[in-house]
Amino acid sequence: MRNIKITVEYDGTDYSGWQRQANGPRATIQQKLEEAILKVTGAHSAVHGSGRTDAGVHALGQVANFSTSSVMKSDTLLKALNSELPEDIAVKSADDAPPEFHARVSAKKKTYFYRILNRPSRAAVERKTCWFIPARLDVKAMKAACELIPGEHDFKAFCHADTKTRNTVRTVFSATLKRRGGFIVFFIEADGFLKRMVRLMVGTLVSVGRGKTDPDEFGRILKTGEKTGDVTAAPPQGLFLEKVIY
Amino acid sequence: MRNIKITVEYDGTDYSGWQRQANGPRATIQQKLEEAILKVTGAHSAVHGSGRTDAGVHALGQVANFSTSSVMKSDTLLKALNSELPEDIAVKSADDAPPEFHARVSAKKKTYFYRILNRPSRAAVERKTCWFIPARLDVKAMKAACELIPGEHDFKAFCHADTKTRNTVRTVFSATLKRRGGFIVFFIEADGFLKRMVRLMVGTLVSVGRGKTDPDEFGRILKTGEKTGDVTAAPPQGLFLEKVIY
Repeated sequence: MRNIKITVEYDGTDYSGWQRQANGPRATIQQKLEEAILKVTGAHSAVHGSGRTDAGVHALGQVANFSTSSVMKSDTLLKALNSELPEDIAVKSADDAPPEFHARVSAKKKTYFYRILNRPSRAAVERKTCWFIPARLDVKAMKAACELIPGEHDFKAFCHADTKTRNTVRTVFSATLKRRGGFIVFFIEADGFLKRMVRLMVGTLVSVGRGKTDPDEFGRILKTGEKTGDVTAAPPQGLFLEKVIY
Repeated sequence: MRNIKITVEYDGTDYSGWQRQANGPRATIQQKLEEAILKVTGAHSAVHGSGRTDAGVHALGQVANFSTSSVMKSDTLLKALNSELPEDIAVKSADDAPPEFHARVSAKKKTYFYRILNRPSRAAVERKTCWFIPARLDVKAMKAACELIPGEHDFKAFCHADTKTRNTVRTVFSATLKRRGGFIVFFIEADGFLKRMVRLMVGTLVSVGRGKTDPDEFGRILKTGEKTGDVTAAPPQGLFLEKVIY
């Protein structure tokens, strides 16, 4: 059996996230990929993603792998998959990987970014890929809070309550906040992410920007892992899984 | 009567372009703006745009003006219009302008950009805002052709056949082509644009990139105004009206 590594871009707007669901209201990305693989290769394959993304979250470089006995060249496979997939999902690369490669287990680092549109008027062109906040935000305070994120921390305050993960310690390699035109973009690179971690961080950073949470309080939440203050999740449509590093 | 200048962003995907039409298959941007103004101010106003955009073309900074006897503050007007407009049209600014200001007549310069996605796989997230060309393009040759564009030329070869415009001479201040990730972006600034001018230019530049048209031939088309070689229009969804300068 061959082990195929694929890089996947998707607009998550119309999906119930990455993970296949038994009775979800809408389709999932994993399901659509498995359906396309079945059509192209004639056989069922389970697709293993580097991790789940929530409903409405996008990806530029999600990575997944699957087994196949197809003898199709990987370039041909790439084209065939893209012709079967809906227009809001695209496979960017498909390559043979060593048998031991597993998209989730082998992942070393991941990067996400989150886009906030901060101007008086809402978006038209990019309305499905940002969080619109017309209020003035104290970006300097948000940057100060952001600088406290890198390092090894117990991120349990920035983790969705219903997670099954026991170890909530992760190492963040970088976390930055930049103004880009009308947008404020938050970038983060870590060895792994807890459920809803980036959205909870961004929501809390925005609370800092609104003057509701002090940057020092943000640091205290990071240090103690206690969910005090205004730790609420930013909406999904601003979030992008950018890339997975192996 | 007050003269209100508005800056408008729109996703042109679902519209028959800017210009109001008697029996168009779909709505137009101008029509949607006029409907929103009627709802907000209670009176009909004709909206004058800086120029038309074709069906499917987008804008980040289209400019228009209209007369109103409303006494609403311009900030309030901005919010009221955005709450009436569909989600793919947004007014970015609304300000009182001098009575003689006319969005089309007063315009000094305009800038457009055109986005080509040049990679093996199609777009998912940005599928409605680029032209996907998987073939290898000779960007060096395209840049060489691009350098010939600035200056005063008779652009009649780059003008849609059914135009009513008699004077096809325009001055281009700058025309550049840049790689940005998987994208090739063409920027152009001119004192005015003919019907379909940017799309015909981009289509011809792509023909140069494919090796079908020589950069010298491109220069000859510019010089003589004769539509020889492969002068065909690029599709609308890659084109953005970026800004109008007064």
